[in-house]
Order: sequence, then structure tokens, then C-alpha cells
Amino acid sequence: MLYFDNAATTIPSQTALEKADIFNSEKFFNPSALYLGGLNCSKEIKLAKENILRNLRATNHEVIFTSCGSESDNMAIFCAVKRGTFLTTKGEHSAVYKSFLELKNRGLSVEFIDLNADGTVNEEKLYDYVKNNKVDFVSIVHVNNETGGINDVNKIAKTLKSINKSIVFHADGVQAYGKIPFTLSQDIDLYSISAHKINALKGVGALIKRKNLNISPLIFGGGQENGLRSGTENVFGIKVFDFAGQEKYQNLNENYKKAQLHKSLFVNGLNKDLFVFISNDNCSPYILTISAKGLRGEVVMHALENQNVIVGNGSACSSKNRFSRVIENCGYNKDILDGVIRISFSTETTIAECKQAVEIINNTVQKLKGILK
Amino acid sequence: MLYFDNAATTIPSQTALEKADIFNSEKFFNPSALYLGGLNCSKEIKLAKENILRNLRATNHEVIFTSCGSESDNMAIFCAVKRGTFLTTKGEHSAVYKSFLELKNRGLSVEFIDLNADGTVNEEKLYDYVKNNKVDFVSIVHVNNETGGINDVNKIAKTLKSINKSIVFHADGVQAYGKIPFTLSQDIDLYSISAHKINALKGVGALIKRKNLNISPLIFGGGQENGLRSGTENVFGIKVFDFAGQEKYQNLNENYKKAQLHKSLFVNGLNKDLFVFISNDNCSPYILTISAKGLRGEVVMHALENQNVIVGNGSACSSKNRFSRVIENCGYNKDILDGVIRISFSTETTIAECKQAVEIINNTVQKLKGILK
Repeated sequence: MLYFDNAATTIPSQTALEKADIFNSEKFFNPSALYLGGLNCSKEIKLAKENILRNLRATNHEVIFTSCGSESDNMAIFCAVKRGTFLTTKGEHSAVYKSFLELKNRGLSVEFIDLNADGTVNEEKLYDYVKNNKVDFVSIVHVNNETGGINDVNKIAKTLKSINKSIVFHADGVQAYGKIPFTLSQDIDLYSISAHKINALKGVGALIKRKNLNISPLIFGGGQENGLRSGTENVFGIKVFDFAGQEKYQNLNENYKKAQLHKSLFVNGLNKDLFVFISNDNCSPYILTISAKGLRGEVVMHALENQNVIVGNGSACSSKNRFSRVIENCGYNKDILDGVIRISFSTETTIAECKQAVEIINNTVQKLKGILK
Repeated sequence: MLYFDNAATTIPSQTALEKADIFNSEKFFNPSALYLGGLNCSKEIKLAKENILRNLRATNHEVIFTSCGSESDNMAIFCAVKRGTFLTTKGEHSAVYKSFLELKNRGLSVEFIDLNADGTVNEEKLYDYVKNNKVDFVSIVHVNNETGGINDVNKIAKTLKSINKSIVFHADGVQAYGKIPFTLSQDIDLYSISAHKINALKGVGALIKRKNLNISPLIFGGGQENGLRSGTENVFGIKVFDFAGQEKYQNLNENYKKAQLHKSLFVNGLNKDLFVFISNDNCSPYILTISAKGLRGEVVMHALENQNVIVGNGSACSSKNRFSRVIENCGYNKDILDGVIRISFSTETTIAECKQAVEIINNTVQKLKGILK
């Protein structure tokens, strides 16, 4: 199988799993327990947090472990600011987008800023809005999960705060963490990450919070995670995330270059007559979204699946809708929207796999277009 | 090591882990993906839900997977009823208790009903309150996590609804699921369970909901779990939960009898001059809470730890407080509260372990009382 849907999820690292295995056997304790076994688990969680902060070169933040990127996004949006105007973009993951719709349901003021063609936010419109309105909370995706478009969230946060220093700024870093070289600046108040996008397990995420920012819990109870996220910590999942994160950050720049190479094999190898390229060179090298214009993405996806090539069509999280809301907001027409497929890479991807997949994708789409003509 | 803190957490079943291992390798896909690998993961989640409902002999409920018992409790409390009066007991786990304090913070009306000495709710006071007040939501723990006291939640729910049929009734079943023979009746609208209390993994829970009850999500996003709980499903954790649940329910009655035997070895073997028994014969056989009256529970716990006997002191989730709120609400004085330790069993516990532990506990507490006299 040639797996190119790594933006949806990745295969867990067997070495990370093996290293963490002990937390399901000898070290299975409840980290809230006051005996040594419990205290040691608690220490291991602390270590995992320090490693995340080191990976992001964050000097004034703290980590709250959650159950996923979606929970982290929800916590950022619902728990930091309780009233006022909430601003985001038309290109957010549904964990942010749907949370904003819920804010609106609850009677709060929300606004969605337009996108550029590659899915990044239109910064001019963003700054204009903030200049002309009293905004309290802003959420902007770091790497767009559908196009790979990279928002320079450090610069954006800094600019927004120079206009209105009381804004609370959140970035959804789920498709960036472990992939994009990045220093988490102090202008970013909240930053969401997820484990299963970097060859760790589903069921673990984190919200990284600027130390002096006060937020309330989304989940109340035993007071784990400094009182901010109750529920027995998923020690095994946290440690797999920790070990997988270490694997990624040890070779972050090399991995980045490798992903660039993989993406370029597709960009150069895919038949320009068959495809419209939605992702561009400025996008994350881990995501390449294209459209087999004139065909349905789902049909292409299944035809490729029959050839053992696995690609995504839009975000797996919104795969039940015909069109991708995000790509539609990039300004494409129905013909292109219909044919969208997403090819996404991991550090496990090989050059040989890319070359093979390019050939199969070209041939399959050529045939489909022939048949359907 | 003689581990008797199974109410805090249990060691994961190695057979369940092995059976689920494939979901971290060949079947690692995102269950929202529309290709076969994704659809198969989605089917496996559906199967796990059916098994939970079968285990509980529930005929008119559905399962929403969450990240833990605390999330399930929070979702039940915050997402089913949005206004009115919320009623619970003074013996709830902090995931319920602290959520009720948060409801109060938000300006809602909350009330806590008194306990009996074994931690069960005083039913007379409960029914009186509901007769004399318009109550909208009631949450009652099925098995008290600190005393093992069993509330007959089916009977209670039925009685409450005969007084006021519009009440939404939630039971926290975290210490009951996989342990206590039980049929989830239609009078129970919501029921919380957790994986890591039955030899599955931390990081997985479920909220079981009566089919016709409308609730809103706590976490918004991609619309997983029928739109009620967004975030990529933790397939591996869900399947370990599924397999561990099957192991428990295959032998539920035998396991129950075994736990009764284990508890009786302690009840009969522990020196009556040294201990006050807080749990009684009506409590869950999986939990035995006693007080080494005159000593501090934490001191006893650490002295036992030095002899490789691991017991809890109160709930691991509230272990940072000196006294247990729950045991205090059972009506005990400071002297007894100070000395509380919780001995809790799993299906893995053996008779030999129990006998050995009883001897060590007797000797250790005898010595401590001698030294401290």
C-alpha cells in the first residue's frame, strides 16, 4: 500500500510504542497516586511537557495535555475569553470553525476573514478588521490542513497585538507541530497540537498556553493538569507522543527537506493537463492538494484505492460533505472543487513510493477522464 | 508488588492489548476516511458500541466514546439540560462534584443530598427534595468510588421519574461497569463509564445516552460520534476497552464472587482492634475502605508501600486534600477521617495476594500504632 493520507492520520512509530510500552505494564499507575509508582508517572508527564516546550523553543509557555487537537481548539476558544468579538478565518479546521458557529449560537459576535487562493488568511483584511473593530479573541490555523498554506502566526500575532494588545491569540498548530521549523513566540497565547499527526497515537493532544494567561477548564473534576483539565492522564499515550516528538525534532530540518523533495516529485511528475494545483510552493511540504478537474475527487480516490494508492479527499473530518468548505473559500469554482484530492506525506514516506504513486495517479486519472469523456 | 489500588487504575490486560495491536499497525487509519481502511475502523468502533450495550443489556441506548469518565460526566452535566435545578449527592466523584460547583458559578441552582454512612445517597431526603422542588437534572453515582457504596440507580431513577417525569437522570457508572451485574434501564438517561478501571487503557471513556434524549456536544468539530463528540476517535484505545470489556462480561458473576471472597479475606482477616470499617457488606466487593483510626492514612500508605503493598488513600483524584470530602460526608469524625485507606480489587487479584496483604497490613499498622503511642 502506498499511503498518502498522512494529514488525516499517521501510522504510529513502532519504536515510540515500544519505548512507551512499560507504561502499560510495570509503570501503569495513576499519576495522581501519592506512592512512588504514581509519582513517577507524574514525573514522566512533566518530562513530556518540557520536551514539547523545548521542541517549540517556547520559553514562557506551559503544556496542558488533552485528548486531541479538537479538544485543544475547543478549550482555547471557549475557555480563555468569555465575551466580546471572536475572529477567525474561512480556512480553519472544523474544530475551530464549528466552535465559532457555537459561539455565534450562544449570542457572541464572530467574524470569518477571507482567504488567499492557497488557503492562507488575507492579512490585509484581517488587520483592517482589527483596526476597525474591538476584537477580543483571534484564532488562526498555522498550517491549513487542506491546502498546506502556512500562516506566519508569529508575525500575525505580533501585528494584531500592536493594533490591540488585549487580544488573546490562538493558533491551531496540529499540522505544523513536528513538521515545520518554528519558534513559539510570546505573542501566541494558545497553541493546539495533536499526537496522531506525527506518528503517535490517536487520543492525545495538547494545548500550549502562555504562562500568565488565565483560562478556565473545559472539563472539571479531579484537578489534573494544574486544575485545567481533569481526568486521569493518558500516560501511555502521552509518552508515545513524547517519544514520537523527539524522533521528529531530532531531524526536523532533514525531514522538512525530505518532504520538500517528495512534494516536488509530485509537482514535477503529475501531468499538468490533468490536474489543477491548489497547494503552491509556499505551502507546507507535507501537504499537496490538487484537483482532477472535471472528475469527482471521491471517484478518483476510490480508483486509486483499487491500485493501492491511498489519498485523501479534503479533510477526513469533513469528508461527508460534497465540497470542501475550505477549498471553496479559496475561491475555486465547482468544477475544480469537485475533483479535489489531498496527497500528504510523513517522515516515513520514501522516494520510491512517491515515484510509483505519481505514475499510478497519472495513469488512473488519464483513464478515468478517457472513460468519462 | 501486591497492588490493591484498582479503583484508581488497573494494569491493562495484555491479551486485550495484543488483540488491539493491529489498530496501531495495519489498521491505523482515520475512521472518518472514506476508503476501506477508514471504513473498517469505523465499523470496529460500531462493534465496540454494540458490545457495551449488550454488556449492559441496554435496549434503547447509544454509546458516545469520550476520552475518560470525567469527560463523560461533564458532558452529561453540561450538555443535556441548560437551565433549572441540578441535584446530586454529597458522595460524588469530583468529576461530578466540581462540575456542579461550576454550574453554581454559572448561576444555576444546585443541591447536594446527604449520604448514609456507607456513602450511598439518603433516598428519603432525595425523594423529599424532588417532591418539594422543581428539579431538572439529577446525577447519582452508581458505585461510590471511595466507599464502594452501591446506589440502586435503576430504582432511584424510576422513583424520581414517578415524581417528576421530565427529570433527566445521569448515573456515574465508572466503578460499576465491568464489575457489578446490572441492566441499564430506560429510566437512566445518561450513564458514564471508563476504560482504565477495567484493565483497559487510560484516555478512553464513554457516555451512554438514551436514544431519544437530545444533548449538545461538549467538543465541537468534525462531527464524529454522530455529531456529539468531535475529534478523531481513539480506535486503538476503544478496541482495548472493547476487548477488556468482553473479558470482564464473559465471567461477570464469577468475577463478582471472586471479589466477594477477596473482600471477605480482608474483612475477616484485618484486626478489628486496629481498624474501623467504612465499607459494609452491601458495598461493591471491589472496594474496601477502612480507617486505621488514630494514624494518618498517608503514613499507613507509605509504610505499606515500603512492604510492597500498594493501597490508596481516598480517591486518587482528590489525594491532595487532607480529608476525603466523601468520607467526611458519610459522617465520620476527624480521627477516623485521618486514617482512611482504600483497598480495591481487580479480576487479576489472587487469594494468596490477599492473605499476604492482610498480614502485612495488620503487622504494619500494629507497629505504627506502637511507635506512635
